[in-house]
Formats: sequence, structure tokens, C-alpha cells
Amino acid sequence: MITLVDSSLRDGMHSVRHQFSPEHVAAVAAGLDRAGVDVIEVSHGDGVGGSSIQYGRAAFSDAELIEAAAGGVARARIAALLLPGIGTLRRLTEAQRLGATVARVATHCTEADIAEQHIAWAAEHGMTAVGFLMMSHMIDASQLADQARLMESYGASVVYIVDSAGALVPRTAAERVAALRDALLAETAVGFHAHNNLGCGVGNALAAADAGATWLDGSLRGLGAGAGNAQLEVLAAALERSGHATGAELFPLMDVAEEVVAPLMPRPQIVDRTALSLGYAGVYSSFLLHAERAAAKFDVEPRAVLMELGRRRIVGGQEDMIIDAAAELADRTAPAQTGSSPGA
Amino acid sequence: MITLVDSSLRDGMHSVRHQFSPEHVAAVAAGLDRAGVDVIEVSHGDGVGGSSIQYGRAAFSDAELIEAAAGGVARARIAALLLPGIGTLRRLTEAQRLGATVARVATHCTEADIAEQHIAWAAEHGMTAVGFLMMSHMIDASQLADQARLMESYGASVVYIVDSAGALVPRTAAERVAALRDALLAETAVGFHAHNNLGCGVGNALAAADAGATWLDGSLRGLGAGAGNAQLEVLAAALERSGHATGAELFPLMDVAEEVVAPLMPRPQIVDRTALSLGYAGVYSSFLLHAERAAAKFDVEPRAVLMELGRRRIVGGQEDMIIDAAAELADRTAPAQTGSSPGA
Repeated sequence: MITLVDSSLRDGMHSVRHQFSPEHVAAVAAGLDRAGVDVIEVSHGDGVGGSSIQYGRAAFSDAELIEAAAGGVARARIAALLLPGIGTLRRLTEAQRLGATVARVATHCTEADIAEQHIAWAAEHGMTAVGFLMMSHMIDASQLADQARLMESYGASVVYIVDSAGALVPRTAAERVAALRDALLAETAVGFHAHNNLGCGVGNALAAADAGATWLDGSLRGLGAGAGNAQLEVLAAALERSGHATGAELFPLMDVAEEVVAPLMPRPQIVDRTALSLGYAGVYSSFLLHAERAAAKFDVEPRAVLMELGRRRIVGGQEDMIIDAAAELADRTAPAQTGSSPGA
Repeated sequence: MITLVDSSLRDGMHSVRHQFSPEHVAAVAAGLDRAGVDVIEVSHGDGVGGSSIQYGRAAFSDAELIEAAAGGVARARIAALLLPGIGTLRRLTEAQRLGATVARVATHCTEADIAEQHIAWAAEHGMTAVGFLMMSHMIDASQLADQARLMESYGASVVYIVDSAGALVPRTAAERVAALRDALLAETAVGFHAHNNLGCGVGNALAAADAGATWLDGSLRGLGAGAGNAQLEVLAAALERSGHATGAELFPLMDVAEEVVAPLMPRPQIVDRTALSLGYAGVYSSFLLHAERAAAKFDVEPRAVLMELGRRRIVGGQEDMIIDAAAELADRTAPAQTGSSPGA
């Protein structure tokens, strides 16, 4: 049985510049609840406490939104996302008080250790503690399994492979799920959070389910950062056709997507050139503007700069290295000097 | 090595109500050719000779469009689609004279035998003869393999599994490809044509490649009937990330999608409620209006009618059975008569 998690009201926040109101949240959550979706994630796009000039100011507080969601549901569990360094334990305490029963604690895929106190606190205080390993394409399956084991050791009962850049394909998604499934205790669930930059949002989630993942994220109409998530109502149908049961009822789920979420979307979630380039390069979307500037300065193709950043495995905080990458690329691609004869 | 086939100028015709001009066709074909796409399909959406009141009047003749495409390419091969019963041999002769070197002959998945003369003619006249088994989800893998063998026996050097309704998922797509791969001669290629109704356009094409398909269709920005096709520029990137080489260059392919095709699209190709319902039910999109009318008449859920049509495996030409299906559904879902005690 698959536990379906909707991220329309958290990852989808990126698509609406964190402007969802308590009324929006209550309506979407009520629709998801009626359709039998198990878990509904509600927070600023960058997790509780993310509202800021740097990450984008939200129109309403996390507290107001979590309370609205919790008030709108009868069966579904409410989840809050927390990125240590952006959100603090105080935010998690508040989220729990307002009705969140699932804590999703997210770190870069190599930094599980910074989640220790938050995962432990959640587990000790009766929440379902979920570890969330972001940018999971950047390390191989066995390294990822090591990080997942750390999160499990802190008390996580679910550990997610998060394809933040949408850079995985079914084969590489399945490898990672299989490695975590092997490495973790039988009672620890493996989750998968997809992005659609390579058109594989639904395909990767299906491959993850086939490989043993039992918690799967999606969002209505695909609402989410970049090219968006696995489209939840579509994923539910495809899971059923693939022999994986979910508790969701498909027609009500389609209806909330079409009637409640679609009218709130500023633009459809498509895979445009930018989204595809980021997924193909496997880099943070925030690198795009830096890469374009650096490319213009050194007269190289911006997408070649993105590819170079992907090869160098540059992560957030290392933006100064983008100029270096563009400069070296310009050197490498400069026409060979004339004058020396071939073979000299 | 994968042979990439672009269907933007044939399946994509459905999305623009068959209104592409020779100038549009030449620009798209030239862009695809520069990007190294192997085969470019050009025809009315329902194949050569499809322009009619029933199938939609095209703005220009197939001849004008094929000639424009052939004139715009240096390396790519031009393909024309023909549905026996809609198009005739005369159309195929004309297409060849104007520069088409690939003939794609399409039938319903159980009716390969009606393609005999067209496939044989193409093979005998130096064209690459391709058999196209539409609505391939409606029969199982071994039945499909029997039909593929028929097409091979007529002279097809490639046989396609065509997921016209977008009803397959990676597992069921791979099963069908494996069955054809087993049944056909080693020198006969297996092809896969996806639709995205279950969000699996790219995922199914990747699964098909893993299972041995070497001809894969897609279209730029997903342009095509229903929820659209596998998005070609995205598929090319995902194939590369999955270890399947194509001859395509990714950046020029992205550019023609973004700069030439996107501006011509009347709407983005998304998976909306209607497209998802059709894919989930596995029925022809032309049934939608009939199902909605019948549902209204008998006061049942239109999507339940579509599901019933899928279960009954109704095909085009059997539209009169839609009323029957709705009536029976109404009987079945009517509240039980009161008066008789439980257990009586």
C-alpha cells in the first residue's frame, strides 16, 4: 500500500510565490482529504520559517496556514517541512501544536547529520519523523544509503530520496531506492519526491514504487518548483494501472485538481527550455541567473556553464565558483592558435 | 542507437486543427534536421488523405507540406502516415514522389491485415515500411506480437506499439515491447509511440528502450492529440541520462522547441481532467462527447461511462453502444428497491 503525500501547499508555494491564503489552503486540503490522500504538506516553499527576503516573503504565516489545513481535514495527516538552518525547533513545536503530526526534516544529501536534533525531537514527541535527502542525484546510491542510515539512527521512520533538480531517470531513481531499501530496517519506509525537469516525474515515482518505495510525493496539476512535481492525480491513476494500491479515490482527486488548484495557478507546469536545462545539468535553479550573467561576460553558451556546474557538483553557497567555471569554459572552447603546424 | 522520430508535424497537427502551413513545416523540419533528428513525420493528423469534414479540414494539402519538409532538410528522412481506409496507395505514391522515404502504415491493433498492400508496396518501392499498431493497450502482449508478425510478413522493417489512448504505464509498455522483440526477426526493429495521458509519455518511451525498442517517437513540446506525446527534446535528454545514445544534439533541439514550436501552440500540452480520464479509461478521445451526452441522459458520472466503455473494449464505429453502457450503468447504480427486507 502506497502512502500518498501531497505537496501542492508546500512545494507548490514556489509556483505562487508563497502567496496561498488560509482560505486556499483549507479548500485544497479539504478536497485532498475527501479524495483519501494520506498526508498533506503545508509550509512556506522552503519550509517553516522560510518567509524572508532571501527565500520569498509569504502572504501568511506558516502557523495560519497549518491551522487552516488542520481545520479542513477529517482523515488526512498534516505535515510540515523544516530545513535546519532556515527553520528551528521552535517552529516545529508550533507546527505540532497547530495540528501537524508529520515532521519532514530536509538536508542536502550529504548533510544528514544536521538533521539530528530535529528528527529526534519529532520522533520523541509523537510525530512521524521523516528524513528528506535533497539533490539526491549528486551522490551515488551507496553514499545516499549511508546518509539515510544516519537519519534512521536519529529516529526517522521514513527516509526520502528527493530529486530536487529533477535530474534522475527511472533507472537511477530505482537504483537509489533499492540501495536504501537494502540498507534500512524493514520497518523504516523509503520515500520518493520527484521533479519533472526530465519529464520523468510520474515515471520515476512508479519506478521508485516498483523498487520498494512506499511513500510517494506529488502535487495537484504538478504544482511545484522548476518543472513541477509528479502530478498527483495522474500518479494515483498510473500507480493503480501499475498494480500499486493507494487509498485515494481518483475522480474526487481529479476534481480538486481541476476545480480548486488549476484556477489558482499563475501558469501551467510545463517543461520549458530553462527547466530542462537545469534538470539535464542537475543544478539548483537559483544558479540560472548567475550562469547567464557569467556566460554573457565570457561569451559562452549559458547552458554549457550550467553543465559545467553540474560536472563540478557545485552546491548552494558556492556561487562565486560560477565565474571561474565560465572563464575556464571560455579558455577551453577558444579557437586553437594558428601558426603551429599540425603534428608539430 | 535509438532512431528518433519527430511527430510534431503529424500528431501535432491535431493540436493546431491541421492548420500548419508549408512555412511552419519548413521551419520546424529545418530545426529538427539541424539538431540531428533522424526521421520527421509530416501529414494530416489522421494521415495522408485525412483532410475532410469528419477528420478536420487541413489548411494545406499533404503534398504541399511534405514537399516543404523535404525541401527544408539536409540529413533527416521524411515520413508520411497512412491509415488504410482514410488514405490510399495513390497518396503514398505521391508522398514518395515529393520526398518521403518512410511510410508509416497504421491500423487498429487487431487489424494488421488491412495494411498488407500498403506495407508491401512501400517495401517494394524502396521506402522504409513501418507498421503502426494503434490502441495497443487493448490487447495483451502475445496477441500484439501476432499482429506485429503479420506486419513483418508484409514487409515492414519496423513495427510500432502505438499507445494511442495514453493508457500504458512503463510496466505494460515494456511487456509489449519485449513480446514483439521476442517474436520478430532480429533485423526488424520495434518502435514505440507514446501519449502522455497517464503522465508516462517519457517514462514509457524509456521503458520501451530498455526493453529493446530502437525507434522512438516524440514531438517538440509534446505537441499531439490528447495530453500530447512524449516531449521529444525532454526524451532526448532523458535517453542520454539513461544510457541510450541518440544522434540528436540537445541544445539545438531545445531551441527549435522553444523558439519555433512553442509560439505556434494554441495551448500548452498539459494533463487535464479530460485527458487523464480518457487515458485511465483507455478509450478514444472521440468518445468523450458521446459519453457526456449519454451520462447526462441517464444521470450517471460521465467518467464512469468512459470506464465502462474501456471495460467493454468498444472501438471507433461502435458509438451506438455508448447509450447502452450508460443505461446499464444507471440500472446498476440505482438505489436498491425498498420494501423487501434484508436477507429475504
